[in-house]
Amino acid sequence: MNSIEFYFDFSSPYGYFASTRIDGIADRYRRSVDWRPYLVGTAMKATGHQPMFRTPMFDDYVRIDVPRFARLLGVPFQLPESFPVVASAASRGFYWLKEQDAGTARRFAAGTFHAFFGEGRDISRPDELRRIADDCGVDGARFLEAARDPEVKRLFKEKNDEALAKGVFGSPFIVVDGEPFWGADRLDQVEKWLATGGW
Amino acid sequence: MNSIEFYFDFSSPYGYFASTRIDGIADRYRRSVDWRPYLVGTAMKATGHQPMFRTPMFDDYVRIDVPRFARLLGVPFQLPESFPVVASAASRGFYWLKEQDAGTARRFAAGTFHAFFGEGRDISRPDELRRIADDCGVDGARFLEAARDPEVKRLFKEKNDEALAKGVFGSPFIVVDGEPFWGADRLDQVEKWLATGGW
Repeated sequence: MNSIEFYFDFSSPYGYFASTRIDGIADRYRRSVDWRPYLVGTAMKATGHQPMFRTPMFDDYVRIDVPRFARLLGVPFQLPESFPVVASAASRGFYWLKEQDAGTARRFAAGTFHAFFGEGRDISRPDELRRIADDCGVDGARFLEAARDPEVKRLFKEKNDEALAKGVFGSPFIVVDGEPFWGADRLDQVEKWLATGGW
Repeated sequence: MNSIEFYFDFSSPYGYFASTRIDGIADRYRRSVDWRPYLVGTAMKATGHQPMFRTPMFDDYVRIDVPRFARLLGVPFQLPESFPVVASAASRGFYWLKEQDAGTARRFAAGTFHAFFGEGRDISRPDELRRIADDCGVDGARFLEAARDPEVKRLFKEKNDEALAKGVFGSPFIVVDGEPFWGADRLDQVEKWLATGGW
């Protein structure tokens, strides 16, 4: 069975929400999840959109919708003072970890989301990334080094380009057997798609 | 109890989807629905967005998501050849009808959505609007006259400005006791909000 492709941006609250549910959904259908951070900002060059928190009218709405969504899911949430960040270092380090062990990379991703949206820590800061890595049993100093490595930068650029080439433009963006689903509000449809094989 | 404010654009497929469910949801909580067509295009001047069907990357996605959503709901759907239209005449006529009888206006709105997305008829054409009005027991010729009346134009402009001033920018956009919900994918949250009084 194909893995479920889970595209997200570490700086996206809706990506965070999906990250708290996607593995549980996949488990119920004996599927694995391939976590794939990328930078939504790079897709915005094509779409012409701005982040919702900076778009007139949308900004007022997401300040209501995002915390309300968090309360509905029952997940810890705050809008970090540093929000939004460009989460390149976290994303690069993620793919470096993934080349060694996908499980560790996944734990690092969940830890990063939790640090940012659960605890309000600034995940663009090296000291925070180091702590998150350490907490996953990864050598934090080596993690930071890897996140600056030109080879790892190249690897992440490749992953990012690949996402865009597949038509990924939002966070979360989930692909099940070639079928795309955009948004944390599509998770129920994702689950139904897995249960029924599509409709 | 306040009515549920249901803002939509007749040219929006997601607005159509919501229109097939909103009254049923409201009924279960003994609420009424105040149908309020407006032109999303006027909000786009503030948001800087383009219609999704004309936005790179989003366009490929909505061509999959929209028919898939229709199949999930089990509602008749096609993307009309004339899509998208500027649905000013239908919206103006709606508010003229509403001043006389809200129930007739609601039937006209449901008929308009069905004609457009269910049958693919061009709802920007006077002859189609006339048929839709006739089918609701309204004098179609008078309807067309009203839709051209400067007083009715002024009334619709007022309603449209009022929506924008309230922060409405999408379709559907639903307000329950001051709480805004954007998107056909928020209907389950709307229902839960009505059931629980909020969370």
